[in-house]
Amino acid sequence: MTTASRPTLVIGNKNYSSWSLRPWLLLRQHGVEFDEVRLPLDTPEFYATIGKYSPTGRVPVLIDGELVVWDSLAILEYSSERWLDGAGWPQQRAARALARAVSAEMHSGFQNLRTQCPMDCVRRSTDPVSAEVQRDIERIGVLWRDCRARHGAGGPFLFGGFSIADAMYAPVALRIISYGIEVGPVERGYIDALLALPALREWLSDADAEQRAAKRDSR
Amino acid sequence: MTTASRPTLVIGNKNYSSWSLRPWLLLRQHGVEFDEVRLPLDTPEFYATIGKYSPTGRVPVLIDGELVVWDSLAILEYSSERWLDGAGWPQQRAARALARAVSAEMHSGFQNLRTQCPMDCVRRSTDPVSAEVQRDIERIGVLWRDCRARHGAGGPFLFGGFSIADAMYAPVALRIISYGIEVGPVERGYIDALLALPALREWLSDADAEQRAAKRDSR
Repeated sequence: MTTASRPTLVIGNKNYSSWSLRPWLLLRQHGVEFDEVRLPLDTPEFYATIGKYSPTGRVPVLIDGELVVWDSLAILEYSSERWLDGAGWPQQRAARALARAVSAEMHSGFQNLRTQCPMDCVRRSTDPVSAEVQRDIERIGVLWRDCRARHGAGGPFLFGGFSIADAMYAPVALRIISYGIEVGPVERGYIDALLALPALREWLSDADAEQRAAKRDSR
Repeated sequence: MTTASRPTLVIGNKNYSSWSLRPWLLLRQHGVEFDEVRLPLDTPEFYATIGKYSPTGRVPVLIDGELVVWDSLAILEYSSERWLDGAGWPQQRAARALARAVSAEMHSGFQNLRTQCPMDCVRRSTDPVSAEVQRDIERIGVLWRDCRARHGAGGPFLFGGFSIADAMYAPVALRIISYGIEVGPVERGYIDALLALPALREWLSDADAEQRAAKRDSR
């Protein structure tokens, strides 16, 4: 291992893998150079290859020399320490505590939204979502508005500047668009700010290309 | 708010609330002074009071002056920064990355163990557990042995000295005992080290008193 070697981030399909998007977005948006290994989920290729990289058999996983870090939240914490000098989180302690609380709530919660409205970047539908999904969206709206009101003065993101909390919620923003879920003006403005991120635009463009290629292959 | 004021940790029943145990154990084991508010789960008292403290309606929640931090993992991160000068996590970066990965895996995973074998400190049973629970226990065994083998030289815990990773897995150790689940010698030694922690002994003693009081009240 040399510290100059680039890390490798192993991810799933860009169209579907919401957990992969989170660390990818942080690293790319901050210009951290890394090699990307993309393994299409639930394919023979995935199962034949993932064991080589991941102790859990899941993506994402980050390989930095000898070190293997799994779980998106742990990868985000590690990346902030390793390459961003802690700048992945808001600088002010109270803001950082709140950012970690909302990120942890995303990490273990919102099961209805996650299972009933899986991330599917290219999808556009307007079928009504269930009451349970609507409750998840309402709670997320409360969180977003509270973060913006308390700490959003310095920029358009949850804590002003782009942070790990935004990386955690970016897939939620994409779901809100894909499933045509109505949200208020603060949430809408926040989603627009995420969609304007060059790194997220790159991810969406790749997801689109991935889906077009998949369609060609299935013809 | 004065920085000299003691924080308040709002928790559930000590016998049952595994998520409450985690931050309580870190704070107590490190001698951080705090006021404890215990709200018995699923009681009218709980529902009448929790909204005063917690934005999610759940425990644990930490109140430090004006700041409210919810979610056990976020409370652990905050406590390490706020009162332990970062010593909640292992000092070495690679060990810290692994500690965060295993803690995050606990935070969002092991659903079968969590739902089928809820923490119940005073319980002692030997009924066989399901195959799914057994798989969770096997994965946890792999994690514990790997942490001990790589980073456990300096002490009896996952990363040698007591860390947030141990606070995260202490409720698993208690479940292994309560449900009479067989484990190997490394896991057994680790569980014994946890059980020897003065702070965990205090928690278990309180849980025992709580259950005896509940029995008296229901006579």
